Amino acid sequence: MLNIGLLGCGRIGQVHAGSLQRIDTARIAAVADAFPEAASALSARTGAAAVSADEIISSPDIDAVVIGTPTDTHFDLIDKSAKAGKAIFCEKPVDMSADRIRELITIVEAAGVPFLTGFNRRFDPGFASMKARIAAGEIGDVELVTILSRDPSPPPVSYVKSSGGLFRDMMIHDFDMARFLLGEEIVRVYATGSALVDPAIGEAGDVDTAVAVLATASGRICQISNSRRATYGYDQRAEVHGSLGLIKANNVPENNVEIASGAGFRSAPAQHFFLERYAGAYLAEMKHFIDCLTAGTSPSPGIRDGLAAQLIADAAAKSLETGVPVDLE
Amino acid sequence: MLNIGLLGCGRIGQVHAGSLQRIDTARIAAVADAFPEAASALSARTGAAAVSADEIISSPDIDAVVIGTPTDTHFDLIDKSAKAGKAIFCEKPVDMSADRIRELITIVEAAGVPFLTGFNRRFDPGFASMKARIAAGEIGDVELVTILSRDPSPPPVSYVKSSGGLFRDMMIHDFDMARFLLGEEIVRVYATGSALVDPAIGEAGDVDTAVAVLATASGRICQISNSRRATYGYDQRAEVHGSLGLIKANNVPENNVEIASGAGFRSAPAQHFFLERYAGAYLAEMKHFIDCLTAGTSPSPGIRDGLAAQLIADAAAKSLETGVPVDLE
Amino acid sequence: MLNIGLLGCGRIGQVHAGSLQRIDTARIAAVADAFPEAASALSARTGAAAVSADEIISSPDIDAVVIGTPTDTHFDLIDKSAKAGKAIFCEKPVDMSADRIRELITIVEAAGVPFLTGFNRRFDPGFASMKARIAAGEIGDVELVTILSRDPSPPPVSYVKSSGGLFRDMMIHDFDMARFLLGEEIVRVYATGSALVDPAIGEAGDVDTAVAVLATASGRICQISNSRRATYGYDQRAEVHGSLGLIKANNVPENNVEIASGAGFRSAPAQHFFLERYAGAYLAEMKHFIDCLTAGTSPSPGIRDGLAAQLIADAAAKSLETGVPVDLE
Amino acid sequence: MLNIGLLGCGRIGQVHAGSLQRIDTARIAAVADAFPEAASALSARTGAAAVSADEIISSPDIDAVVIGTPTDTHFDLIDKSAKAGKAIFCEKPVDMSADRIRELITIVEAAGVPFLTGFNRRFDPGFASMKARIAAGEIGDVELVTILSRDPSPPPVSYVKSSGGLFRDMMIHDFDMARFLLGEEIVRVYATGSALVDPAIGEAGDVDTAVAVLATASGRICQISNSRRATYGYDQRAEVHGSLGLIKANNVPENNVEIASGAGFRSAPAQHFFLERYAGAYLAEMKHFIDCLTAGTSPSPGIRDGLAAQLIADAAAKSLETGVPVDLE
Repeated sequence: MLNIGLLGCGRIGQVHAGSLQRIDTARIAAVADAFPEAASALSARTGAAAVSADEIISSPDIDAVVIGTPTDTHFDLIDKSAKAGKAIFCEKPVDMSADRIRELITIVEAAGVPFLTGFNRRFDPGFASMKARIAAGEIGDVELVTILSRDPSPPPVSYVKSSGGLFRDMMIHDFDMARFLLGEEIVRVYATGSALVDPAIGEAGDVDTAVAVLATASGRICQISNSRRATYGYDQRAEVHGSLGLIKANNVPENNVEIASGAGFRSAPAQHFFLERYAGAYLAEMKHFIDCLTAGTSPSPGIRDGLAAQLIADAAAKSLETGVPVDLE
Repeated sequence: MLNIGLLGCGRIGQVHAGSLQRIDTARIAAVADAFPEAASALSARTGAAAVSADEIISSPDIDAVVIGTPTDTHFDLIDKSAKAGKAIFCEKPVDMSADRIRELITIVEAAGVPFLTGFNRRFDPGFASMKARIAAGEIGDVELVTILSRDPSPPPVSYVKSSGGLFRDMMIHDFDMARFLLGEEIVRVYATGSALVDPAIGEAGDVDTAVAVLATASGRICQISNSRRATYGYDQRAEVHGSLGLIKANNVPENNVEIASGAGFRSAPAQHFFLERYAGAYLAEMKHFIDCLTAGTSPSPGIRDGLAAQLIADAAAKSLETGVPVDLE
Repeated sequence: MLNIGLLGCGRIGQVHAGSLQRIDTARIAAVADAFPEAASALSARTGAAAVSADEIISSPDIDAVVIGTPTDTHFDLIDKSAKAGKAIFCEKPVDMSADRIRELITIVEAAGVPFLTGFNRRFDPGFASMKARIAAGEIGDVELVTILSRDPSPPPVSYVKSSGGLFRDMMIHDFDMARFLLGEEIVRVYATGSALVDPAIGEAGDVDTAVAVLATASGRICQISNSRRATYGYDQRAEVHGSLGLIKANNVPENNVEIASGAGFRSAPAQHFFLERYAGAYLAEMKHFIDCLTAGTSPSPGIRDGLAAQLIADAAAKSLETGVPVDLE
Repeated sequence: MLNIGLLGCGRIGQVHAGSLQRIDTARIAAVADAFPEAASALSARTGAAAVSADEIISSPDIDAVVIGTPTDTHFDLIDKSAKAGKAIFCEKPVDMSADRIRELITIVEAAGVPFLTGFNRRFDPGFASMKARIAAGEIGDVELVTILSRDPSPPPVSYVKSSGGLFRDMMIHDFDMARFLLGEEIVRVYATGSALVDPAIGEAGDVDTAVAVLATASGRICQISNSRRATYGYDQRAEVHGSLGLIKANNVPENNVEIASGAGFRSAPAQHFFLERYAGAYLAEMKHFIDCLTAGTSPSPGIRDGLAAQLIADAAAKSLETGVPVDLE
């Protein structure tokens, strides 16, 4: 039975707590949050002790930490946890700065602690099955990847301003998915975008409608498109065109009811947003983390995957700014 | 090049004329209709001579007749055509009376002329492909057949009164489809129904909503349901459950466009009615007839299939009346 | 916080335990099972006390019992629990004998305790949404209901022998669904069936492939078909044809991945069996039970719904035996 | 009744002949081909006279010409036909050189003759319905367009060498579709590609897997991807994301049959190639041409649409070559 310390008791921390409660081989030993009420509330629901982050990290009884705090606190918590020998599950992005992620890689690898970067979509039953079937050769060689990703509605402009921009905040998930599905590193990025959903996002210096084209050394290509608004739910689709066929992961509807009338056949919208759509992914992700710790294997995606996606996001942001493609080393 | 005489220039006659114009190995040599204007109009469009039915049947230049006249004229036209040695394509139903169909079987078989009963649905690309795959063993042994069939809107009550009733007028197509898909003769029929769509249909002694359960000697079962009204187009579906799997023929939508909004995903209604839905079936049916004549093989479904469906319809009507299942000899 | 006593710690008892753990307003206070190991195991996983059924029923601390024991124990447990003033959630069937269910109705109604019959499918998100939309008038008047229900594989013949037969063991769910969707009582039942899946089932006096036709006083019709085997997963579909349109609840696939090759487009099988397909339904069902107890309202479906479905199953069994339709009082 | 002269009796000429035979208001008066046997064969099937192209163009009885000859003959035939006052339907591309198309625009507009450029996909029932619904405001403002287009198999390398390259030969259809769906002119093009399907295509200096990103002045974005090979049929999809919703035109399957087994649900491949997929589009396109001539209105897309698509293709080819986006004037 592994003892887990939960750092951050906000929305995503609560999701991870719910997952841990459904896993027999781990238990939430302690929870911490900068807002004591948040920690108390989660303590009450889970029976875990509400303590400080430092107490969790320094406790000899804690095997692993799950970090779901604001991004700007990640560096410090990872640094301390790694040095304390804790296994680490950290929400994406690991950090907004690629240089600082590089520093953390040095620290984490020196400490030799297991590290999972929270790219939850890799654990979605659809995307995971798609990846497994590509790996099994079902579509032959991967040639073209298409990823469509749209949020139900744009975040407040205040959030946008501190988000690092659409490429680092939203499309970063798709950059990780592109690497996951292409099976080869990205060498060139072209990106463009507009503020079509909310002019205030444009005034804040960001875009809300954007596309990217990624290419690998062997000539595989990935197209990504994002919009900050979709009236029909959280649109999360990917398809991979290969030499032997095509594989697609479609949206997950709210239910499987269909109604017909003179206006045609109507089925349910896509599940509303990430908490619904990726409920299964969050659970599978946590199970993977716990199973790796139990078995002594390395969780994946690791911290280097966190860096790789960040570097693509940086390149996309630069491409948008300069208007030309950007090469990755 | 086969010379075809078209008997009946109404709606279905025009469909058959259009099919014949697209077949290189046959030509419409002559057309006839009780209404001279109907024959003239089709003559103008096809270049075929407008003559009398008797002239067509007695002409030594005519190889085959296509009968699309009212049902009560079928007996006489088949009788004369068979005796004149013409190949015969006759619209369903061959006749409203099973006894008279038996008489015609004697005449047609004595004459040794090819005979095709116009159960057009067997030639629909979906149903034909389903049948071929069942025959190829793709779903193993056939166990349960489900047929759903709904017209877009009820016919006028005047039509209903002379139609022979829903089982002989509408469900007869499904009885033929049941035989086609079950691959075994029906031995027992239970049917029930109500007038839910239009009370005037009930007052006229008929039903507009009905179901039938058919069973074969080996215990295979078929369920059929009909409604005289479907707001979403012409509903024509069948599925067959077998020992190795299930095969379904879905509806054909008006187009393949899908639109998404907060209300969900909306796709097109089913094609409106039989002229649209079975356009391909009518062409394939005529090609089959012409190809059989050219090759000297027997068209199928033949006149005995016309009788078999009529006997099931008679049994269903009797079951509705008596409230109990009816055995077929 | 309601204290729940769980009677029966087998497969279904464990499902209900899992649901209760996810509901904040109730807790599992005690568990009981005829096999002490089963109770101990569930006690270990939930922290609830493992005691005897009688201790649960007589404990003043227990607010409600959840009965998931073998059917032949239901009568006694319901009788005692009702007399002890406990709210009752009992798995279907309430009892194999309609007469004994009538006795229980008298007892339960005299005791005035809330009673939920475990027809879990009513709580499936698809079927529940379908029902709500019918009730909201979206398809107008209900006319024709079609229910297709197929298990992935037949039970052992030993189970079949004591199951009460397909109509009471399997199709009873569909009879309840028919009542739920028709919104009107059934007055006549015709049923037929065969042993096509496994001859041993036929030798045991039962069928494994069966259909039923149900009719209401106003002429609404429902067709049900069952098979004990479906190679493509647990097939659970229903559709309702109404005066304004059609509503369907489709199967739930294992995932939403689609793969294309020269053989066409392939998507996932239906979810394997009831534990997967109805996971959401079991949770929603328990939430409904707990919410009703909290709010002081009556759970539904109640014990009279359990009787109604049993009477239809009895009538179907009699129809199969006699070959003719059976009227319900 | 309009008299049409058909220039070119190859595959596409035969398609247009078939369409004209189904249109009551026009007739094929004469056919011409550089290969006399081709003209004779089509003459035999249609009853039209087999003559020379010059005879058709100079005949006072001919109202319109349909040009389906090799691209390098278009200039001359359009030039002569326009000067002879004939209405013109010319297959795409009008010419491989944008400058020569500009010359033809001057000639055609000076002559004042109706001109239809054969971008057949605009007339596909799916794409046409999608465009109409966008124009009707059903999805609000257009923001993001995604076009996926894949041929079933690559052309011979000999063809590739003289094709003008993938962007001018294949993606040109998608460039026209992009303009059609975006409703705004393209101002910038980024394109990239690889030879992944057939290395010989790469050796011939072309690509077989390619993407393009198009942007309009107002910031609307279109992503296109092409592959010269799809194992599952002719993949022709487009979707438009707007402020109020999403609209998609899906592939058209070979039939609507679905088969289920332990491997899941399998449906038919997409229709094989353009002759099947766009059979309806070719007919609707010709009807549009004839209807415009009859009504005295201008056919659309016109010759300027032919130029616009060519300019985007030229820009895409240049972008592929230079590695950077290319601006259109």
